[in-house]
Amino acid sequence: MGATLSLEKETMQIGLGKTTRRAYGFDEIALVPTGNTLDIELCDTSWQLGNFKFEVPIIASAMDSVVSPENAGLIVNEGALAVLNLQGIYTRYEDYDKLLREISLADKSEFVELMQKIYKEPIKPELVKRVVKQIKDSFTDKSKPVAVSLAPYLANEYLPILEDAGVDIIVIQSTVVGLEHKSANKDQSKDLLDTKPTQLKLEEFCARSSIPVVVGNCVDYNIALKLMRTGIAGLLIGIGPGAACTSRGVLGIGVPMATAIADCRQAREDFYKETGNYVPIIADGGMGIGGDICKAIACGADATMIGSPFARTLEAPAKGFHWGMATPSPVLPRGTRIQVGTHCSIHELIHGPARRDDGSQNLLGALKVSMATLGAETIAEMQDVEVIIAPSILTEGKVFQTAQEIGMGSSR
Amino acid sequence: MGATLSLEKETMQIGLGKTTRRAYGFDEIALVPTGNTLDIELCDTSWQLGNFKFEVPIIASAMDSVVSPENAGLIVNEGALAVLNLQGIYTRYEDYDKLLREISLADKSEFVELMQKIYKEPIKPELVKRVVKQIKDSFTDKSKPVAVSLAPYLANEYLPILEDAGVDIIVIQSTVVGLEHKSANKDQSKDLLDTKPTQLKLEEFCARSSIPVVVGNCVDYNIALKLMRTGIAGLLIGIGPGAACTSRGVLGIGVPMATAIADCRQAREDFYKETGNYVPIIADGGMGIGGDICKAIACGADATMIGSPFARTLEAPAKGFHWGMATPSPVLPRGTRIQVGTHCSIHELIHGPARRDDGSQNLLGALKVSMATLGAETIAEMQDVEVIIAPSILTEGKVFQTAQEIGMGSSR
Amino acid sequence: MGATLSLEKETMQIGLGKTTRRAYGFDEIALVPTGNTLDIELCDTSWQLGNFKFEVPIIASAMDSVVSPENAGLIVNEGALAVLNLQGIYTRYEDYDKLLREISLADKSEFVELMQKIYKEPIKPELVKRVVKQIKDSFTDKSKPVAVSLAPYLANEYLPILEDAGVDIIVIQSTVVGLEHKSANKDQSKDLLDTKPTQLKLEEFCARSSIPVVVGNCVDYNIALKLMRTGIAGLLIGIGPGAACTSRGVLGIGVPMATAIADCRQAREDFYKETGNYVPIIADGGMGIGGDICKAIACGADATMIGSPFARTLEAPAKGFHWGMATPSPVLPRGTRIQVGTHCSIHELIHGPARRDDGSQNLLGALKVSMATLGAETIAEMQDVEVIIAPSILTEGKVFQTAQEIGMGSSR
Amino acid sequence: MGATLSLEKETMQIGLGKTTRRAYGFDEIALVPTGNTLDIELCDTSWQLGNFKFEVPIIASAMDSVVSPENAGLIVNEGALAVLNLQGIYTRYEDYDKLLREISLADKSEFVELMQKIYKEPIKPELVKRVVKQIKDSFTDKSKPVAVSLAPYLANEYLPILEDAGVDIIVIQSTVVGLEHKSANKDQSKDLLDTKPTQLKLEEFCARSSIPVVVGNCVDYNIALKLMRTGIAGLLIGIGPGAACTSRGVLGIGVPMATAIADCRQAREDFYKETGNYVPIIADGGMGIGGDICKAIACGADATMIGSPFARTLEAPAKGFHWGMATPSPVLPRGTRIQVGTHCSIHELIHGPARRDDGSQNLLGALKVSMATLGAETIAEMQDVEVIIAPSILTEGKVFQTAQEIGMGSSR
Repeated sequence: MGATLSLEKETMQIGLGKTTRRAYGFDEIALVPTGNTLDIELCDTSWQLGNFKFEVPIIASAMDSVVSPENAGLIVNEGALAVLNLQGIYTRYEDYDKLLREISLADKSEFVELMQKIYKEPIKPELVKRVVKQIKDSFTDKSKPVAVSLAPYLANEYLPILEDAGVDIIVIQSTVVGLEHKSANKDQSKDLLDTKPTQLKLEEFCARSSIPVVVGNCVDYNIALKLMRTGIAGLLIGIGPGAACTSRGVLGIGVPMATAIADCRQAREDFYKETGNYVPIIADGGMGIGGDICKAIACGADATMIGSPFARTLEAPAKGFHWGMATPSPVLPRGTRIQVGTHCSIHELIHGPARRDDGSQNLLGALKVSMATLGAETIAEMQDVEVIIAPSILTEGKVFQTAQEIGMGSSR
Repeated sequence: MGATLSLEKETMQIGLGKTTRRAYGFDEIALVPTGNTLDIELCDTSWQLGNFKFEVPIIASAMDSVVSPENAGLIVNEGALAVLNLQGIYTRYEDYDKLLREISLADKSEFVELMQKIYKEPIKPELVKRVVKQIKDSFTDKSKPVAVSLAPYLANEYLPILEDAGVDIIVIQSTVVGLEHKSANKDQSKDLLDTKPTQLKLEEFCARSSIPVVVGNCVDYNIALKLMRTGIAGLLIGIGPGAACTSRGVLGIGVPMATAIADCRQAREDFYKETGNYVPIIADGGMGIGGDICKAIACGADATMIGSPFARTLEAPAKGFHWGMATPSPVLPRGTRIQVGTHCSIHELIHGPARRDDGSQNLLGALKVSMATLGAETIAEMQDVEVIIAPSILTEGKVFQTAQEIGMGSSR
Repeated sequence: MGATLSLEKETMQIGLGKTTRRAYGFDEIALVPTGNTLDIELCDTSWQLGNFKFEVPIIASAMDSVVSPENAGLIVNEGALAVLNLQGIYTRYEDYDKLLREISLADKSEFVELMQKIYKEPIKPELVKRVVKQIKDSFTDKSKPVAVSLAPYLANEYLPILEDAGVDIIVIQSTVVGLEHKSANKDQSKDLLDTKPTQLKLEEFCARSSIPVVVGNCVDYNIALKLMRTGIAGLLIGIGPGAACTSRGVLGIGVPMATAIADCRQAREDFYKETGNYVPIIADGGMGIGGDICKAIACGADATMIGSPFARTLEAPAKGFHWGMATPSPVLPRGTRIQVGTHCSIHELIHGPARRDDGSQNLLGALKVSMATLGAETIAEMQDVEVIIAPSILTEGKVFQTAQEIGMGSSR
Repeated sequence: MGATLSLEKETMQIGLGKTTRRAYGFDEIALVPTGNTLDIELCDTSWQLGNFKFEVPIIASAMDSVVSPENAGLIVNEGALAVLNLQGIYTRYEDYDKLLREISLADKSEFVELMQKIYKEPIKPELVKRVVKQIKDSFTDKSKPVAVSLAPYLANEYLPILEDAGVDIIVIQSTVVGLEHKSANKDQSKDLLDTKPTQLKLEEFCARSSIPVVVGNCVDYNIALKLMRTGIAGLLIGIGPGAACTSRGVLGIGVPMATAIADCRQAREDFYKETGNYVPIIADGGMGIGGDICKAIACGADATMIGSPFARTLEAPAKGFHWGMATPSPVLPRGTRIQVGTHCSIHELIHGPARRDDGSQNLLGALKVSMATLGAETIAEMQDVEVIIAPSILTEGKVFQTAQEIGMGSSR
C-alpha cells in the first residue's frame, strides 16, 4: 500500500497539446441541507493536532498583522490556535510598536520599500525565547500550545532554540513545500526571507524534533501523501487563493481552495487507510466569513487558518491594517497592505454574539448553526455534507445592481 | 413503491475526494418559445392548495415587512395568498406601528441590535386570535383562507390556538425542514426565534391538525418525497437563494432555485404516481420580477412565494423598508434590512396595468403573456416548457457597460 | 422527407425533473482564422431575399427610432434594406416630428405612460399609402424594394392596402411567430398593439399575397422548418437577445443568438435539401458592432437586422434616442428608451471610413475585412468558418479594471 | 509523416447546425505546484531563435510606442529581444519626436484621424538602413541580433535592403498569416498598411532569405504545422487576445491565448518528430504581468512578445502612451491609444528589483521564482507543469467588492 495511489482526475483539453481540469473556489460552491437537523448544542466542532485538542477549528495565521506576542494568548484562551511568525518583526525588534505604526502610516508608494528595509534586520534568538515565554505566560490554561512558524531553511538551525524555549508546535511554511528540492548549494543564510524554496530533509527533521511539526503549503494529492509519510502532525492546504495574495498575478500560481482541499482530503484518507494515522489538513487562505469556513470543512478540511478576520479585531497588532508576509521580499514583493479596519473583539469574532449580519462575527456560532442545519454532529460528518457548484457571481453580481430594486430573496 | 427512488444525478468532481454537481439559478436560465401560441384570455393561472383554489399563483411571504394584519386582506382580495408570520411583531405588540417606524429609521449600525431587542418580547396568544379575526374580517370573500406561519417548535403548542382562532392554512417554516432531528432535550421554549432547527413529529402533527399544513423549506428530492408522505398540503422550496438573504455568506448554505425546484418537482411527480395525491410545491425566494416567476413555474413550481415585491407596494407595513426574519437572532443575525422604496399598489403589482417596463409590475399579466407566448394554457403546461441555460451575466453585464453605446437589442 | 427531422440536441440536467441545454450568445463566441486569406476586393457580401438582391447583408429594424419615411431611402440607397413599422407613429400621425421630440424629452418616470398614450391613436390607411410612396420616391434605384412590417392580426386586413400602395416586401413580426395559435375568439381589432400572439393562417396568407413575406421571430428548429414550408421568403431569428430588450426580465423568455441561429440554419439546410428552395434567415437583435454581425453570419445567418446602430446615425428620426416597440403596450410595457447619441452618417455606418476604432462604424468594411482574414469569399463560406466559445466577460471585464494598467494586448 | 496529423479536438454544440469547442484565456488558468522545487539560481530561462540564444524569453513588440531606434539597444542589452516595426514612424520620418508628442497630446476624438494622416507618409529605405545601424551601434554585445518587422506584401521588396542593412532577424507579421492567399491582383503597393491579408510565397522567401524569418500571427494547429514546413525560424501565436486590441469587437475574430498556444505547441512537437527541427513558438499579446508570462510558457510557448509593459518604461518612445499598429488603417481603424503611464526602467522591468507587488516589475525574476516554485529547471520543463482551469473573475470580482472587508487571503 506504500505506493502512490493512481487516482483518476476528470480532465479536459486546453488545446491539442495540453490537458487540464476544472478547479473550484469557495465562491463557486454551496452546501446542501438534506433534511437531517440537530440542536446546536449537539454540534461538536473540536479537532486534534498531535496531542492537542481544540474546541475551535480556527487557527490565526502566522502574519505580523494577525498574531503578536500580546494577542496570541487572547486567541488561544478562546479555544483557537495562534501561530507566531518567527521571521516577523517581533523577533527582529524589541520596540516593534513603533514599526507597526510606521507600516500603518506609510504611503502606498513607499510601503514596499519600507517593508523591504524593516525586514532586513536579523532575527534575534533571545527575542525568540522572550516572546515564546510571554505567550505561554498569557495562557489561562498552561497546557495549551505555543505555536510558531518559520521557513524550511531555518528549521534545522532553530530547532534547538525552539525546544529550549518551550515551543509546542512548529509550523514549517513556505509558498510550496515539497520533498524534492534541488539546491544551488549557495550560502542560504543570507536569504533572510522565504523568497525562494529551500531544502529541508523533512523526514529527518520530524524524527529529530521533539515538537510536533505542521508543514505547508500544499495543494496536491501525491505530495500531500508523501508529506504525511514523513511524520508530520498536520498539513496546511492552499496556494494563492485569496483576494489580496498576489501570487497568482505575479507567478501565475494558484489553486482554488475547494479543489485543493478535496484533493488533499483523499491523501489524508488514503494515508489513514495505509497507516491508521490521521493527519489533519488545515485550509489556509481565502476564508473571510463564516460561510467560507463551513465550506472549507465541507470540502474536507479539519480546521482553517485565517488571517484578515483576526487583523480586524480590536486586539490586532496593527489596528486595522493587514499585509502579506511575502511583501518584504527584496527582489519580488508579493502580497499587499490593505486597511481592513476593526469591528469586534477576538471573543466576538469567535464566539459572538454577532452584531453584524454578514458572517464576519461569531465564526464558531456560524459553523455550529451550519452544522446543525446540515445535520452534521462532528467535523467528520461536516466533511461529508453535499456540496454543489453554484456560482455566486451570478447572484452576488446582482446584489450590486438590484439590491435596492429587487430586495430580499427568501423569507428565511 | 414506498421506497425512496434512486434517481441518478449528473455528478462531477470538485477534487479527488469530493463529488459535486452543477446547480442553476434563475439568472442562468431562460424560457424557449417553440411556436405554439395562444390568446392571453385562455391562460389559466389557477392552482390549488388543499381545498383552496387561487387564481393567482403568488403568495406573500411570512415576513413582517411583507404581510401585516392590515394588508393581508388586500392581497387575498386580489386572488393571491398572504401568510402572516405568527412570530413577528404583530403578535408580540399591540402598538406595532411605532416599532415599524423605529426599524425604518434605525441607523445601519444599530439595526441588528434594535431587531434583537424588539423580537425578545413574547408572543401573545390573544393577539394571535385578534389578528386572525382582523384578517378574516377584511376579506370580501369569506371563504378565502387565513394563513399563518410559525416555527416547528411552536407548532404543537399553538395548534389549538390556531384552530380556535379559525386559521385556514398553517405554514410550518424553518431554514431547513426535515424529518429526523436530533435534540439536546433542553427547554426549547426559551428560544423565541427559529435560530436552530427544532424537532416536530410532522406525521403526527398533520394527522392531528384539522387545518392543512404547508411546510418548508426544502431543496432535496428525498426529503421532499418523505415530507409529502407525512400528509402535508404543500411544500416550500428554496434555501438562501436571494440577493439579501445572507444564509449563504454566514452558513455557506444555499441551493440555486432552478435546480432545487427541478429536483423537488420529481418528488411531487413520483409521490403522485405512488399515491394519486398531488402536493403542490411553492418556490420561495429569489424572485423579484415577472420573468423570475415565469421561470420558477417552468422549472416545476405550482406557485411562488415572494417578499420584496410586496414590501415595495404602497400598502406595505414598513413603507419601503424590508428585512429578513432571521435578522433578530440574538446570537447569529442573518438577513439584512434594505430600503426598497414603494412604487405601486398591491392591485397594480398583481394585475397591472404596469407603468414600468422592468417586469416589476403586473406580475400576473407577465405570467399570462409569457404563457400565451409559450403556448402554455395551464400551470401544468407551463411546467413543461423548454428551459435553456443562458447566463444573463454576459448580457446583463453588458447593459451597464454599453447600454448607452449599443442600445436596444431586438426590435421586439 | 416532409416530416420534422429528429435531430439530437446535447442536453443536461437542471435538476432531477428537468432537462436543459446550454445556449450561447455573441459575447461568448469568437471566430477562428485558419490561415486561408484573400483580398478584401474578392469578398462578396451580397445576399438575396425573394427576387431582391442586396450588396449589404444589413436590415434596419422596423422601429420608430430606426426607420422613418425620411431615412428609409437613405438606407436603401447605401445597399441595405429598411423596414418601416406600419404600426408606429408614422402611420398614426401626420405631424410625427412633434411626437418624436416629446418622446425624447419625456422624463424617465413619465415615458411609459406617454408612449401608451401616443400609440393609442389609430393607424390611418391613407398615411400608409403616403409613406410608402414617399419612401419609393426617395430611392435612386426605383427597382429597390419598399419593406413594411406589421403584426399577424393586421396582416389580412392590410394586405390589399399594401398591394395597392406598392409595397415590395411584407414583414409579419410578433414576439413569437408560430403556426398553431389557440384563440379566445374575441374581437382582436381592439388590441392595437402586438401585446399578445395572434392567429394568422400563414400558408393561406403567403399563397394569397402577391408580395413576398418575411416572418418572425423564431428561435426553434422545428418551427423554422414548418414556417419555411408555408411559402415565406425569409425568416427573422431572435427573441429577447438584446441588452435593452426586457422580454427576458418581464417574461423570462429569451434565447441567446448564437444558438438560435445555429438551430435555425439547420432548418434552412434541411428545407433546402427537402425542396431545393433556399429561405434566408435573418439574425434580429443583439448586434451593436461589426464583430457581432460577423459572428451572426458565422453562426449561419444570411443577413442581420439591427436597430440601435441606425438610431445613432445623424439621419435617425429621434436624434439619438431609441426605444423598443413593445414599450407602448397598455398592460405590460416591455423595452425601454435609451439615449444612444449620434456619431456618424448612415453612409459612414455602412461603408465608412470609420473614425472610431470600436467597431461601431463601417460595418460592411468590418465584415469584408473579417471575411478576408478568415478566407471566406461569400456569405455561404462565412457561415462555415470555425467558431469557438471564448467568454468575453473575462477579458472585457478586465478592460475596465486594468486597461490603464495592463494596456494593449497583442501588437496586431 | 508529412501529412497533416488528424488530432481530435473536444467539440460541443452551439446549436443543431454548428459545432464548436471551448477555448481558454490566461485569466481562466493557473499553474499548479506539485512539490518539486529548486533554487532560483538553477532556473535556466534561456531560449533559442535560429542561431541566437537569449537569456530572457521576452520580446518587445514591433509597435511604435514600444520599440524605437533609441530603446531597442537598451532592451537587447538586458538579454531580451526588440523588434522594430519597419512600417512605423521611425522609417517614415526623420523627426519622429515631434510626431510622438503630437500623438500623445491628441484629443481622443481626433486621434484616429491624426494616426491615419501620419501613417500616410511613405517608408524611406535610407531611413531603414540608418535605424538598423543606430540600433546595432547601441548594442554592448555586437553579436546580438537586430530584428525588424514588416507586412507580407513588403517582404520581397525589402529583403535586399534588409540584407544590405545588416538586419539579423526578419519578422513577417500580419493579423493572420497563412499559406494560401487569394489575391485580386490589384496594385498592392498602394496599401501602405497591413489592413488586408496579402500574399507572400513563404517557402520561396525563406529559401531566398539569408536572414532567419519569424512569421505570425497564427492560432491553428494545421497552419502552424504548414508554416513550420516552409523553413521559418519561429512562429508568433495569438490573434486578438488583448484588452485593448479591438479585433474581436470589430471583426469578431480572436482566440483565447491558452488554447491557441496549446494547439500550436502540438504542431511544434509534431514537426519536431517529423523533422528533428525545433521551431520555437512565441506567445504574442495579452500578457501584462509576470504571471501571464509564466502561464504562456506553461501552455507551451518558448518565449513571449509583449508591448504595454515596455510602453510603460521610462525609456519608452511615447512617454506613457501606447497604441496599436492597426489604428492608422484608413478604412477600418482597430486598436486604440491608451495612457499607460511610466513606472520603472527597462532594467527594472526585466531584472528588478520590483518596487511594486502587482507583478508589473521584474518579469524575469517572477518567471524564475515561478519556475523554482514549480520545480521547472528549463523552459521545456516549465512547458510541462500542470495547468488548471480556475476562473479568476470569481476572485478578482471579489477583490473589488470585498478587499477592504475580507482582506488578505493566504498567509503566503
